[in-house]
Amino acid sequence: MLQIGFDIGGTNIKAGVVHDNMKILCKRSVSFPSDEGYQKVAAILAELVRDMAKELNRQISDFQSIGIAAPGSIDAASTMILNAHNLGFHNVPLKAEMNQYFPDTKVYLANDADAAALAELCAGAFRGCKTAVLLTLGTGVGGGVILGGRMFKGGMGHGIELGHMIIQHGGPLCTCGNRGCMESLCSATALIREGRKVIEENIESMIFKQTQGDESLVTAKLVLDCAKEGDSAAYDIFENYVDCLSSAIVSCMSLLDPEVIALGGGVSLAGEFLFEPLRKLTKMKSFFKVDQKIVPAELGNDAGFIGAAMLAGNEEKE
Amino acid sequence: MLQIGFDIGGTNIKAGVVHDNMKILCKRSVSFPSDEGYQKVAAILAELVRDMAKELNRQISDFQSIGIAAPGSIDAASTMILNAHNLGFHNVPLKAEMNQYFPDTKVYLANDADAAALAELCAGAFRGCKTAVLLTLGTGVGGGVILGGRMFKGGMGHGIELGHMIIQHGGPLCTCGNRGCMESLCSATALIREGRKVIEENIESMIFKQTQGDESLVTAKLVLDCAKEGDSAAYDIFENYVDCLSSAIVSCMSLLDPEVIALGGGVSLAGEFLFEPLRKLTKMKSFFKVDQKIVPAELGNDAGFIGAAMLAGNEEKE
Repeated sequence: MLQIGFDIGGTNIKAGVVHDNMKILCKRSVSFPSDEGYQKVAAILAELVRDMAKELNRQISDFQSIGIAAPGSIDAASTMILNAHNLGFHNVPLKAEMNQYFPDTKVYLANDADAAALAELCAGAFRGCKTAVLLTLGTGVGGGVILGGRMFKGGMGHGIELGHMIIQHGGPLCTCGNRGCMESLCSATALIREGRKVIEENIESMIFKQTQGDESLVTAKLVLDCAKEGDSAAYDIFENYVDCLSSAIVSCMSLLDPEVIALGGGVSLAGEFLFEPLRKLTKMKSFFKVDQKIVPAELGNDAGFIGAAMLAGNEEKE
Repeated sequence: MLQIGFDIGGTNIKAGVVHDNMKILCKRSVSFPSDEGYQKVAAILAELVRDMAKELNRQISDFQSIGIAAPGSIDAASTMILNAHNLGFHNVPLKAEMNQYFPDTKVYLANDADAAALAELCAGAFRGCKTAVLLTLGTGVGGGVILGGRMFKGGMGHGIELGHMIIQHGGPLCTCGNRGCMESLCSATALIREGRKVIEENIESMIFKQTQGDESLVTAKLVLDCAKEGDSAAYDIFENYVDCLSSAIVSCMSLLDPEVIALGGGVSLAGEFLFEPLRKLTKMKSFFKVDQKIVPAELGNDAGFIGAAMLAGNEEKE
């Protein structure tokens, strides 16, 4: 059976046709049409469905479902995008809109981080797991949770927001208005903030040299690369980052005792330089002193649309 | 059908016969025999079983199961108490030991906080819930989680330790060796620690007056009572306590979006004086700005043995 998945982001819309055996039969990426309204987005999705059907020599009726992942909150009935700030979407009835194009096809919506976790369950780091946690360390911190071998959407249907677990009560201000959220300490943005401080405070450092003191040139990758090279200011930032991230992971372990914790997003590309000390510190700080399986997420940029394509199967397990 | 539940604590062993309709038909409390080994404890439990059967004019075979809750970690197969420091129990095969007395009765073991959450699910604050969190605010902070309408034992069977979620990275030292665990900030012990500081620092306060400056007389209840009376030093402690507890609850909400969060343990007896500001602050700090249902746990000291008696039913749901 064939499923279609979409991952709508503020920059691009990714799409793919995924077979039940998890093979991706074709994929697409097009620009997100900013400020043109959700009807325009739905029209683009419909066009992509027809286009991919044509490429595969298939009928629309050959697609069992259309799944759509979006960076925001979804209503409990999975019919509306309640709030997706990056898309400018508020109370958007995307399921109904898609059914206007394809009245006979089942349409599912999900938060993109939840969908990414589902993708890892079906085809990545969480295969065979009952309980698992995905953390995506990017501009913000997102994540998804697998419970009982299914994508978990939150007990009340509000969704989950791993990035807003509080790990440093009274800590740095977060975009959500709170202090000390995981996002304020474990995002790429946190690395950039700390990297800029090094410049502001005129600390002699590779970060300063490589940017010639231009704060706007500080990236998370730069900070991580300087830390790898042994730069002491950058390494201090990195060490504190790993310490905070291990605290966040310990909180997840204390609550769920998951089989696997996978890390995605730009920061996770630092590889074993990050994972090795992180595993060590997490074990030390975990209550049961267990070796937590902490691994890179496997599906990268495809995770969103793959997970979206798998939403139909996830619903059936209910 | 009748089930027997035990709650083994470092001071007392509580026992009860519970009907499937959740009625408690009889209950007992006896002293815990310190330093006499688990065989002695098993002998006491067996004696209690026979004694309660006699009182109810029943045969042993009328009891469908014997459930045992203990303050420690249980192995994934639920046959051994791995570590229960307060009992001096390490790798104790309590299930096998009980089956020597009652070979035809099913025996179940569980962590006492998990059992308390199950009791709330069957007969208390979590009735009808699929997703719920119990926090017990006592000498330490424990807790249990309901997921999918069942008692959750942790994804790997290590158990869960809500009290050791880290909510203030780098915060006060916890009994577990970490810093900033919920237990180090939200236990009765944390209130006592802060109350003693008021005395140490010679701050004029009702806490000082009521104890005549004797630190050993500071209790959590005293600090809370002084705060209720409007004492400024005590109120500062209370305010910070509520702030920390709301951060911990926000973390649970960010990860699970539970239907209900129930608070048990001595601190929860402060009632609406605690619950009212806690609900307000939690809503303010929660990502989705939702009114979280935060309520007192209902079953108090009976929760452990009631939950233990319900373990058989919980297993059947698997």
